[in-house]
Amino acid sequence: MMLIIEVMAVISGAIFGVLMARRKGLDFVGVCTVAFITSFGGGTVRDVLLDRHPLFWIQYSWYPVIVFFVAAVVSLIPKIPSNVEKWLAIPDALGLGLFSVVGTEIALELKVAPFVAVLFGVITGTFGGVIGEIVCNEVPTLFRPRTPLYATCAFLGGWLLIVTKLAGISDSIGFPGAAAFVVVLRLLALRYRIGLRAVEHQING
Amino acid sequence: MMLIIEVMAVISGAIFGVLMARRKGLDFVGVCTVAFITSFGGGTVRDVLLDRHPLFWIQYSWYPVIVFFVAAVVSLIPKIPSNVEKWLAIPDALGLGLFSVVGTEIALELKVAPFVAVLFGVITGTFGGVIGEIVCNEVPTLFRPRTPLYATCAFLGGWLLIVTKLAGISDSIGFPGAAAFVVVLRLLALRYRIGLRAVEHQING
Amino acid sequence: MMLIIEVMAVISGAIFGVLMARRKGLDFVGVCTVAFITSFGGGTVRDVLLDRHPLFWIQYSWYPVIVFFVAAVVSLIPKIPSNVEKWLAIPDALGLGLFSVVGTEIALELKVAPFVAVLFGVITGTFGGVIGEIVCNEVPTLFRPRTPLYATCAFLGGWLLIVTKLAGISDSIGFPGAAAFVVVLRLLALRYRIGLRAVEHQING
Repeated sequence: MMLIIEVMAVISGAIFGVLMARRKGLDFVGVCTVAFITSFGGGTVRDVLLDRHPLFWIQYSWYPVIVFFVAAVVSLIPKIPSNVEKWLAIPDALGLGLFSVVGTEIALELKVAPFVAVLFGVITGTFGGVIGEIVCNEVPTLFRPRTPLYATCAFLGGWLLIVTKLAGISDSIGFPGAAAFVVVLRLLALRYRIGLRAVEHQING
Repeated sequence: MMLIIEVMAVISGAIFGVLMARRKGLDFVGVCTVAFITSFGGGTVRDVLLDRHPLFWIQYSWYPVIVFFVAAVVSLIPKIPSNVEKWLAIPDALGLGLFSVVGTEIALELKVAPFVAVLFGVITGTFGGVIGEIVCNEVPTLFRPRTPLYATCAFLGGWLLIVTKLAGISDSIGFPGAAAFVVVLRLLALRYRIGLRAVEHQING
Repeated sequence: MMLIIEVMAVISGAIFGVLMARRKGLDFVGVCTVAFITSFGGGTVRDVLLDRHPLFWIQYSWYPVIVFFVAAVVSLIPKIPSNVEKWLAIPDALGLGLFSVVGTEIALELKVAPFVAVLFGVITGTFGGVIGEIVCNEVPTLFRPRTPLYATCAFLGGWLLIVTKLAGISDSIGFPGAAAFVVVLRLLALRYRIGLRAVEHQING
């Protein structure tokens, strides 16, 4: 089950990367690189900062192979349907839920303090897209006002995981519960276009 | 004493990050991320390159909490006084002095050669701001001509530390001496607007 | 022989970095930083991801010294001859051949799967320039359509190394053979302006 979500999330991360790279008019080298970064960037930053080796995509080497094939196949599709991002919203939200909870858990197991562990959840769930956009020479979408909540969902989900642990709730319930909370919050934010305002506006408004 | 300077420097790094993110019109997620990066980026790059784990902000987890609160508080201030950067110049220069000397010392203790150790001092003192600006999609200020000397102060301070060591001067004098030199040089460069010219101009001029 | 190629490649990487930074009008701090990044970025990313420490430029500390002197000297040259990039093509292609094969080999020795090992070859050979351009706030040239093949040469060369190993060919032949293949392919791509099209165009065309 978790493996299926993980593979789906990796694939949807790769597709997002390809779409981003296509919009910038990159060639196949650029498309593949951006796809790798959006798929593996978050987990890689987490593992390098926590000194966890070997990295997951080095250990499970079929992950890069999948991303490469996804990049190749999506590059060859002549016309990308305009509603593809809508279809990707669900696997992407599932991935955000899974990775933010997994990232928090991994950090907690390494005795990282709760607040910092939650940050690692956010990094795992979101930094792939952030680095991908930096490489594409864009200000990361996540940091821009009115973007539907994304990092915020991961942040709150990480805290929910910690609260369930403190409440003595077993991981077999707390883990999927926190992940589901992230998924639902993300989909609601997308559906109702809930985002944060720019800090500047928030202040003067 | 050192702890006070360090906390002041982390806070001033965070404030600089928030100001940078506000100027770009980012939302609170962007503001926090940029504040973390400007505060911890330099030390993190140093420690990852030198394989020093756990990272300082993972070990001393109240540092990220401080940065988060600073980001929240500064985000809520309705009008930032226009002379705030002038007020921040002093804690920022103290931080530059402290971190560049600490960074050089850490590298020397790991038997890194002097020239490279000085580079680690520069990385520790300056890379937070550099990475923060890259994330904000700007050419780093430090690399631009006519910016008052910044990396150069850290570079010269690192060498001064090494000279005091070679001269057999005790660290209890050499260490604060080199740091004070960086601080004074930085404040003089700011006061008298001393910067490097563009390499191109330097050449044809 | 390998050492000579390596030093030549480091020097040519540094010169490329200086030229890139000059075009952006950076000062000497920017020029040096970009020169370090283009020279050492690829190998550093490889070693951090594979957890190989100490990093090569920390262990062999005269490498950073060379880059610093190259940056200083090239910064002082009043008029850069317009055909300098043509002259640099040969040492740069030699470096690409050497580093992509060395990078693949290092990863294979660490039991990394072939496909991922080839990616490490590509990272080693190309990421210095990529990160340098990100720092300079540009979309990396390598990712842009119609750029003469670069990463592609490294990718194919890595596979050729693996094929020679599978075929039982001794490393003393396979290693220089794969590197030479990369060099020749790169120079042919430059000479005949062979590049990849943008993925978008490739699709609709």
